[in-house]
Amino acid sequence: MNKFVVGVDLGGTKIYTALADCRGRLAAEVWVPTGAREGPEAVIGRIAETVRRVIQEAGVGPEAVEAIGIGSPGPLDQVTGVVYNSPNLRGWINVPLRDRLREATGISVFLDNDANLAALGEYYFGAGRGSVNMLYVTVSTGIGAGIIIDGSIYRGAGGGAGEVGHMVISPGGPLCGCGRRGCLESLASGTAMAVRAAELVSAGRGKAILREAGNDPGALTAVSVARAAGAGDPEAAGIISGAGAYLGMGMANLINVLNPDRLVMGGGALESGNIFWDSMAVELAARSLGPALGDVTVVKSGLGGKSGLMGAVAMALGACGQCLPNE
Amino acid sequence: MNKFVVGVDLGGTKIYTALADCRGRLAAEVWVPTGAREGPEAVIGRIAETVRRVIQEAGVGPEAVEAIGIGSPGPLDQVTGVVYNSPNLRGWINVPLRDRLREATGISVFLDNDANLAALGEYYFGAGRGSVNMLYVTVSTGIGAGIIIDGSIYRGAGGGAGEVGHMVISPGGPLCGCGRRGCLESLASGTAMAVRAAELVSAGRGKAILREAGNDPGALTAVSVARAAGAGDPEAAGIISGAGAYLGMGMANLINVLNPDRLVMGGGALESGNIFWDSMAVELAARSLGPALGDVTVVKSGLGGKSGLMGAVAMALGACGQCLPNE
Repeated sequence: MNKFVVGVDLGGTKIYTALADCRGRLAAEVWVPTGAREGPEAVIGRIAETVRRVIQEAGVGPEAVEAIGIGSPGPLDQVTGVVYNSPNLRGWINVPLRDRLREATGISVFLDNDANLAALGEYYFGAGRGSVNMLYVTVSTGIGAGIIIDGSIYRGAGGGAGEVGHMVISPGGPLCGCGRRGCLESLASGTAMAVRAAELVSAGRGKAILREAGNDPGALTAVSVARAAGAGDPEAAGIISGAGAYLGMGMANLINVLNPDRLVMGGGALESGNIFWDSMAVELAARSLGPALGDVTVVKSGLGGKSGLMGAVAMALGACGQCLPNE
Repeated sequence: MNKFVVGVDLGGTKIYTALADCRGRLAAEVWVPTGAREGPEAVIGRIAETVRRVIQEAGVGPEAVEAIGIGSPGPLDQVTGVVYNSPNLRGWINVPLRDRLREATGISVFLDNDANLAALGEYYFGAGRGSVNMLYVTVSTGIGAGIIIDGSIYRGAGGGAGEVGHMVISPGGPLCGCGRRGCLESLASGTAMAVRAAELVSAGRGKAILREAGNDPGALTAVSVARAAGAGDPEAAGIISGAGAYLGMGMANLINVLNPDRLVMGGGALESGNIFWDSMAVELAARSLGPALGDVTVVKSGLGGKSGLMGAVAMALGACGQCLPNE
């Protein structure tokens, strides 16, 4: 029996779709821009089109495709398949993504949020293989997590588990996008590093960082900071090591509360260079209780930009009764 | 078939033992001082003696007792039944408590740590009834937690899950007993309140609190603070509301990460009066993300000082195949 599934990673900027066999091996992949501003109907049509394309490119009959797994930015309801009001998909309010995509493709669809599926992808195919209680934490513009307990995604009471970006780490700290102060995300995300750089520039400092942004304060990003640090600028290095230390505190909090055996970290902010990872690791080790620190292995994502896609594949395989080995 | 179990709550100051029927109804209870300073052998002998007493008082034959559940201060290994090096049981280093108690009583013994068993007790018999993903947090001299996920104790990779007292809440904050700074326990426990009072008194203030300690700075405790606050002292009220606010932040961190449906709170520090609970509740609500806050019910322990004992009973019943309803 040659059975196949399709995985879709729906993001704010691109749709990444692949066809996989029953072992999770990819037979065809495509990606197209999301075009989120054209609204949900256009995007759902475009997703369905990518599904048709990977089926065609792989040269399998449409009847051989058992299920589609799709990951979407949240918040969403995994049970009803509805995307509520995603900040990364403007204009999406209560969109029944699962049912609409099933209608558009004629194939069973399973939906979950991007952080949960990235965790599942790493667990089955990436840096989480062989673990039992695994955390996947992604650090980019925001900070989010997927929690695997005893081999399954842990969702909590309302599907909201894993909002680690809004742990309080410093109560009087900087303003967070959520309106509160001192959340981990306001201290350790890519956005936080860009804000620290803008503060420095406003105070008449941070010349080297500003140069990396083409001398346009409005164009300062975490990438400007990373580039300046890479060129040896101590102010940029200070921003990155400060953010890394806060990230380490947040990770230690998770290690102390959940005592995982594996912590997988991904997201664009990890590209900020060794300073970020090293200062994170130092603070994580200093802040974690000894036995819990001894139990955990902290590793970078093994799949990079593909963890969400591979999680969607894993969910689709699980949904159609394929048993994946986690080895 | 009249089957019975014995539950034991071993604490630093007392041993609390009860015999229960298959529904968890207590037929006899005794407690005796632990006398921890006499060493493990004397204490284990005393536990065995309380087991014999409850069996005798209940008037059941020893052969009707299927299992003993015992909760002990940690750290301990639930699987091997060994208590490692408990700060609350001085001189206990690698004591094989489970096996020694089985030898002394001739009955099967099951061991877990006190926080896990208090969570289990609340889940089956107290304020956690009817929940699915429940947290039990105890606030006394320290702060600890037991985590129930999908109806079972979540232990993590090495049995160390639930160390919520060592979440970083304020990185530059007060020194914690663990040697780090700004852990939740250093900000929001009974010990933290006593330390804040001592700091006030050292600075020549806190007269009303000092009076409650018999004007002996060495005798200042959280109880002195609670009594002064109860008598209307604003400095004492400030200490309690500050600690409560930090506790609320810690609870919000747990709610955001774990999205539980029930948070049960116990421990002596909750006796510090309404100020503590109210300031905790205000900060918890302000710091929790909306959907997760909507999913959780926050309640005080339903069993008070009996949650650990009832958890030991529940563990023993579960171990001998009795299925308890969580309703």
